[in-house]
Amino acid sequence: MISGERFSVIYHLQGNEQEAYAKAQDICVEQTVEYPYELLAPGFIKDEIVGRIESFVPLHDKQGYQAVISYAIELTANELTQLLNVVFGNISIKPGILVDKLILPDSLFNAFKGPRFGRAGLRQLLGVYERPLLFAAIKPMGLTSVQLADIVYQCALGGIDIIKDDHGLSNQPFAPFEERITLCGEAVQKANGETGRNSIYMPNINAPANEILSRAKFAKQAGAGGLLAAPGLIGLDTMRWLADEDELGLPIISHPAFQGSYITSAAYGFGFSHYALYGQISRLAGADAVVYPNFGGRFSFSIDECRNIVRGTEDGMGHLKSIFPSPGGGMTIERIPELLDVYGREVILLMGGGLFKQGRNLVQNCQDFLTLVEKV
Amino acid sequence: MISGERFSVIYHLQGNEQEAYAKAQDICVEQTVEYPYELLAPGFIKDEIVGRIESFVPLHDKQGYQAVISYAIELTANELTQLLNVVFGNISIKPGILVDKLILPDSLFNAFKGPRFGRAGLRQLLGVYERPLLFAAIKPMGLTSVQLADIVYQCALGGIDIIKDDHGLSNQPFAPFEERITLCGEAVQKANGETGRNSIYMPNINAPANEILSRAKFAKQAGAGGLLAAPGLIGLDTMRWLADEDELGLPIISHPAFQGSYITSAAYGFGFSHYALYGQISRLAGADAVVYPNFGGRFSFSIDECRNIVRGTEDGMGHLKSIFPSPGGGMTIERIPELLDVYGREVILLMGGGLFKQGRNLVQNCQDFLTLVEKV
Repeated sequence: MISGERFSVIYHLQGNEQEAYAKAQDICVEQTVEYPYELLAPGFIKDEIVGRIESFVPLHDKQGYQAVISYAIELTANELTQLLNVVFGNISIKPGILVDKLILPDSLFNAFKGPRFGRAGLRQLLGVYERPLLFAAIKPMGLTSVQLADIVYQCALGGIDIIKDDHGLSNQPFAPFEERITLCGEAVQKANGETGRNSIYMPNINAPANEILSRAKFAKQAGAGGLLAAPGLIGLDTMRWLADEDELGLPIISHPAFQGSYITSAAYGFGFSHYALYGQISRLAGADAVVYPNFGGRFSFSIDECRNIVRGTEDGMGHLKSIFPSPGGGMTIERIPELLDVYGREVILLMGGGLFKQGRNLVQNCQDFLTLVEKV
Repeated sequence: MISGERFSVIYHLQGNEQEAYAKAQDICVEQTVEYPYELLAPGFIKDEIVGRIESFVPLHDKQGYQAVISYAIELTANELTQLLNVVFGNISIKPGILVDKLILPDSLFNAFKGPRFGRAGLRQLLGVYERPLLFAAIKPMGLTSVQLADIVYQCALGGIDIIKDDHGLSNQPFAPFEERITLCGEAVQKANGETGRNSIYMPNINAPANEILSRAKFAKQAGAGGLLAAPGLIGLDTMRWLADEDELGLPIISHPAFQGSYITSAAYGFGFSHYALYGQISRLAGADAVVYPNFGGRFSFSIDECRNIVRGTEDGMGHLKSIFPSPGGGMTIERIPELLDVYGREVILLMGGGLFKQGRNLVQNCQDFLTLVEKV
């Protein structure tokens, strides 16, 4: 029943050596048997089920210690929910524990399909192979479906590759889901007919759990080219499900709403590293791109944290495809050259309010955005 | 399209007066239109869609400020996912913002069914009206289904009211889901036949999103008397869905795994208050009881935080039923009298490893547990 294969998690632990080591020992028990260790008889459970401290060393660039703890792969039942539970279930409630990185064997990667499209697949879908991809959001909430569809049309006309619902648009009376998706789907097709591009419209699928699949199917039929999902709101495994559904077969972009406490905590030594949450876990959960707050915007991510996210989107993870980092939040046309320096070509640049800020001619603003990135 | 009715959120904001007020203004925009405020024309969107600061005062018992911000109820689309998104979506990624309390009008409470059983319904189901309820977990992971079912049997024989899967048991090869649920369901029925009690077995339903409903239905058919759900793993709205499903009609107990970052953050001035997360939000999401780490155990909750959770489970929330607080984690027989002093009768006491620690006779340990609470 046990293959002997194990996966590992790199944890950062706060405290002095003794305290941090006690935390490591505690993790081994808390995340597995959750049972008085002294009562375990010698044998299978003690040897194979309880986590194992593989290494324990001081962190060199900050306070605290790094522990590598391994677990039998069978503990995960090949389920994302249970994998996450082993990695950070109960210990998420204990202070001073941060998940820095997952180290999974191929056998465990093979339990997950991962991103359906990934970087290469998304480029093929959009027919854009050389430059960064352009991403815009329709807003503000309160506009009618007709007004929002017109924004989709103008963005697509101006050369934006992916035009998404603002992540707060769900099924409000101002722009009900089915009406909005129908009109926006038509708008992007009309624009594509004029430009010859393959721009896609990506509706927001954050919805009641029992309606998500039917909304996604409706969206596909109405011409949506992908789905925007906030795993903090709908659950990481629900996003994985949407990605895996062959009947949908749509690219998924992950939005960070309601997921922030896992990452804002990192500054205090708990939660997840940017690398693990936005990179590794987003890929395990099937996202083809991951939106996160860009450095220097109205959020507080540093340039190094953003670089770690990029690494997390492309470092080797068995058969799992590389995905696009998609920095957003406070992005403006003026900042594009700086961002291209940092991110290069393999990025989806999300400009929200900034596109509207430039001037009153949205099509022209989009074209300016496109012109800037075509220079790369 | 706008009724004029609004709901409010009490936020705690870090910083000096100017910084905290800037945060409040930012929340009003970030959580609604997410659009350059200066570009909004006078009228409907600016007046009705953007959040409104209703009050702003210093916190009296700690650093920082309290802002009450109101939003049009229509922003939520009557969906829990979108309600949570308005309350704490993007701003979860910004430091120094804590959700202290939700204040919803009846019209919004009426959009949610809330707990199906609540305190009174759960008592009726179990046939226990006067004393605290007893709750145990079958463990450690690695035991076979036969062994786990025997623990269910012994616990039920000893008088435990609710016997749950350890929250790490999903579908591992040691005790596969259907086999385990079948045997444990039989075990509790056998014990009930002998004791005349209505003890229930509650399987863990943390599972892949596309399998949750079928597992829940299987569990019900196999004699499960309720479901254990960790909303941090499956999504808060997925728990709400399980609670709402008439075809299931089972009580739900919420487990805090993987949800900890929202609450460990509270000590640093961001995330959720214990009152809001474990109390209010658990009830909106349909839980009939909420498990949380007890004060003085191996986690770090204070007695005041636990008292706030209790208040959150019973304070008025429109038609939503009161639910049981269910403290657990490091609980032992010795601590029961102290806990009864703090919690009184309206509590579900969860003893995990502690029940096994007492001695080798599990039935006797359970009986001791029961005898102690019957003294209340």
